[in-house]
Amino acid sequence: MGRWAPNARERLEAAALDLFVENGYEDTTVAQIAERAGLNRATFFRHFADKREVLFGGEDVLAGLFADGIRAASPDATLAECLHAAFVGADATMTPQQRVKAAQRVQVVAANTEVHERGLLKQARIAASVTAALRERGNDELSARLGAELVILAFRVAFERWMKADEDKPFSPYAQAALSDLQARAAQLDSRSQARA
Amino acid sequence: MGRWAPNARERLEAAALDLFVENGYEDTTVAQIAERAGLNRATFFRHFADKREVLFGGEDVLAGLFADGIRAASPDATLAECLHAAFVGADATMTPQQRVKAAQRVQVVAANTEVHERGLLKQARIAASVTAALRERGNDELSARLGAELVILAFRVAFERWMKADEDKPFSPYAQAALSDLQARAAQLDSRSQARA
Repeated sequence: MGRWAPNARERLEAAALDLFVENGYEDTTVAQIAERAGLNRATFFRHFADKREVLFGGEDVLAGLFADGIRAASPDATLAECLHAAFVGADATMTPQQRVKAAQRVQVVAANTEVHERGLLKQARIAASVTAALRERGNDELSARLGAELVILAFRVAFERWMKADEDKPFSPYAQAALSDLQARAAQLDSRSQARA
Repeated sequence: MGRWAPNARERLEAAALDLFVENGYEDTTVAQIAERAGLNRATFFRHFADKREVLFGGEDVLAGLFADGIRAASPDATLAECLHAAFVGADATMTPQQRVKAAQRVQVVAANTEVHERGLLKQARIAASVTAALRERGNDELSARLGAELVILAFRVAFERWMKADEDKPFSPYAQAALSDLQARAAQLDSRSQARA
């Protein structure tokens, strides 16, 4: 095989997911992943630091997309509006093909603590990226951190709903709806609220 | 050394922290930790599943304390009040001695991704525990998850402030204050809010 490998990253991701589901995460080696993708180990390590990273490329993309969306929001957008703006570009990475892969990933993550932990690290990095973008807009530290947690939770809820949907639909309407659902509940969390639990 | 070792758990924790700070997390073995504590490897593994767990025993305790606090809240407590109730028993584990160890832990966690990941897993388990306790009180799924994220974020903010304080003070007032600060901001996250960012 040549040094130039078209779509090497995507091929490695697909091969890794297939092998993780077939043989288990623990029992799959980087050499096997590379072989299944028709590439070599060196190519694998040009794209991914380790075996776990191959599962979480989308999260790094999302961290950038969320921050870009917030930065591109209208200068007079409210904090609530900025949170919605985070999801504007999410469909670029949450594609129908990704939806199929995501089902495999959920299975692998649920079966392995190490993999689950890496997913949580990626989530923490998305939160840091969103927090930074909200801080740049002049929000105070606590508002920015709270807003970032809301974006993450809305993403997780939307992801669960999107995965359960029968047909391929774009992701962002799910994200906007989940965020609105959470925002409506956020007011109840205020100590001044009289909502009874 | 005998089979019966008083305070074995605490001695192992203290020995591990000292060694992690002195020699680095990676370069410290379970055998060294046990030796420093005057115990053997078998005793270590009776208390901890692996080297990382020795850093996060407090988190398992907190997950139970938070849930207990919520369950013990008045039957007519609002959701906002239930979140405050989560912190009522936190001082039992956030002691002045823990405050000294916590500073060492922060240093170890910051220097090692693997350790950081385990901390995030523990945090996710605290969130699940708080979510379950809030669900038991009849809160809907989304309110419970949002409430749990607020408890976690309040804990993290309070922990940072508590660690920066010059003198030994109980933890729970920091947690209640951080939670109130976040709750006041939660209302701004509602789409109907007009707060400008």
